[in-house]
Amino acid sequence: MALRKMKTRIRAGFQGEFGAFSQEATVKLLGPSVEAVPFPRFTDVFDALVAGNLDYAVIPMENTLHGSVYENYDNLLRYECRIHGETTIRICHNLMAPPGLSFAKITHVYSHPVALNQCLDFFRDNPQISKEIHYDTAGSARMVMTDRPEGAAAIASASAAEIYGARILKRGIEDDRQNFTRFFLLARGDQAAPARSPKDRKTAWKTSIVFSVANQSGSLFRSIAAFALRDLSLTKISSRPLRGKPFDYLFYLDVLGHLEDPAMANALRHLDELADMMKVLGCYPKGDW
Amino acid sequence: MALRKMKTRIRAGFQGEFGAFSQEATVKLLGPSVEAVPFPRFTDVFDALVAGNLDYAVIPMENTLHGSVYENYDNLLRYECRIHGETTIRICHNLMAPPGLSFAKITHVYSHPVALNQCLDFFRDNPQISKEIHYDTAGSARMVMTDRPEGAAAIASASAAEIYGARILKRGIEDDRQNFTRFFLLARGDQAAPARSPKDRKTAWKTSIVFSVANQSGSLFRSIAAFALRDLSLTKISSRPLRGKPFDYLFYLDVLGHLEDPAMANALRHLDELADMMKVLGCYPKGDW
Repeated sequence: MALRKMKTRIRAGFQGEFGAFSQEATVKLLGPSVEAVPFPRFTDVFDALVAGNLDYAVIPMENTLHGSVYENYDNLLRYECRIHGETTIRICHNLMAPPGLSFAKITHVYSHPVALNQCLDFFRDNPQISKEIHYDTAGSARMVMTDRPEGAAAIASASAAEIYGARILKRGIEDDRQNFTRFFLLARGDQAAPARSPKDRKTAWKTSIVFSVANQSGSLFRSIAAFALRDLSLTKISSRPLRGKPFDYLFYLDVLGHLEDPAMANALRHLDELADMMKVLGCYPKGDW
Repeated sequence: MALRKMKTRIRAGFQGEFGAFSQEATVKLLGPSVEAVPFPRFTDVFDALVAGNLDYAVIPMENTLHGSVYENYDNLLRYECRIHGETTIRICHNLMAPPGLSFAKITHVYSHPVALNQCLDFFRDNPQISKEIHYDTAGSARMVMTDRPEGAAAIASASAAEIYGARILKRGIEDDRQNFTRFFLLARGDQAAPARSPKDRKTAWKTSIVFSVANQSGSLFRSIAAFALRDLSLTKISSRPLRGKPFDYLFYLDVLGHLEDPAMANALRHLDELADMMKVLGCYPKGDW
C-alpha cells in the first residue's frame, strides 16, 4: 500500500455546543468534511483564530428579529481577521425526544430561554407541557438523550437531533418563521483573500467597512456620497453611538462590489478622506442575505 | 374629613418580572409613583396599551452590545402607538443573596443565561461558585429569597435586590461596563403628544421615522438628502433587509428636531415623495442616548 499524504481537515471554530445553529452555518460555508470546533464564548473563537489554532471562525452577525450583534462587530475591530464569506441560516426550532417517547407522553420540554420564548404558540396550544430552561438549545437535546428525565423533550436544531440521536416529533414550532441569522466566515488577516474569477459580476462580491465620523449631520451624507456618486449599492448601513464619546458614531456598511474594482477603490479613498477611522473588514462572495 | 378625589396613578406596562431593567427604565421615565405592570411578552404589553388598559408602555429598542431590537420596531409598525420619550439604562449586574449569607458561603449563583454569560470574569475568578440558569434575572433574585436553596445567590439588578429584600454582596460584576439599553416610552396613537416649550432648542427634540425604498443604490442617498439638505442631523440610521422581499429594505432614522419645525416638515414631505412607505414613529424630548 502506497503511503499517501493525509489531507488535513479544515478546522473552523464556532460559539456554542455541537448542534448549534453556528455549526449548521459552518457546514453550509465549508462543506460536510469541515472539523467544527465548539468554544464557550465568542472571544474564545477569535482568540483561537488569531493564535493560528483554527483555519476559520464562523460567527453570527445579524438576526432578522434581534438586529446586529454589535459585540461581534467590536471583535472584528479588535482582532486581526478578515471576512471571507457570509451565509444565512433559518432559525428553525424542532421538538425532539428519545426514540420511543410519543408526543402524548411529553410533560416537559427543555431548551434555552430564547428558544422557549420563540415557541410560545406551541406552549399555549399544549398547556399540558411545561417549559424547562436549559443552558443551550443543542445542549438540551444532548441532556434529554443522556439523562432521559421522564417525559422530557427538547427544542433544538435538526442537526442537534441528528448528532445526539433524538427523534424529531414536530418540526418548525417557532412562532415567527421569518427568523434568520447571518453568519460571517472569518480568517486571519494574513491568510490569502478569497479568489475572484474574472467572469464574476461586480455585484457577486461584497465589501464590508466600518468607519467613524466626528459629527453625523452632513458628514454621514457626504460619507455615503463616496459610494452613491460611483453607482455603488449599499446593502447594509447601521450607525452605532460610541458610548463615552457621545457625539461620535461608528458606521457599518456593506457595499456591492469588489475591493479591486476601480470604483470601489476610489470610493474607499474618498471615504478615507472624510472619516476619522476606516477599516475594511473584508471582501467576499455575496451570500444569500 | 373632606372627600378628596383620588389621584389616579399612571399605569405603565413592561416586559419581564418586577425588578427587571425595563422597570428601572419605567421609573426613570415616569417617576417613582408610576404603577409598573409586568407582562410575559412584548406583544402582551403592546396589546394592553392599544386596548386602553395602560397609559404607557416602556420597551427596550437598542443595546450597545446586542444592537437594535428589530422585533420591537416591527411592533411599532403593527400597533397604533407613538413614541413619547426615551431613556437609557446601564445594564449593571449585581451579586445578591439573602441577608446573613456571606460571600464565602456561596456555592452557586442563579440568573438568566445572558446575564451569567455577561459575568464570565467573575466566575473565572471564583471557580468555587457554579452558574445555575434561571428563567429571568429578577426572578432569580425572587427565587433565592423565597426558596432559600443552600448557598444560593442570584445575579440581578439593584432594584430586584430592593424589591425582594436581597442583600447586594458585589456590585457591577459584568465583564463589559459599556452595556447600555435604550428604552422608548410609548403611548397610544390617540393620546396627546408630549408638550413642547417655546424655549426648547430644536435639538432638544427627536423625531423617529421608518421608511422603505425599493432599491437601495442611489435611493438611500437621495432619501437622507431630504435631511442633509435642510441641515437636520441624524442620530441613528439602520437598514434592515425585508426577508421574502430580497431587494427591499426598511430604514430606521432618528433625526434631531421637532415634527413641527418647518425644516423637519419639509424634509418629511420630501422623503415621502421618495419612499414606498413612510411612518413617523414619534416626536419626543431627546434623552441621554
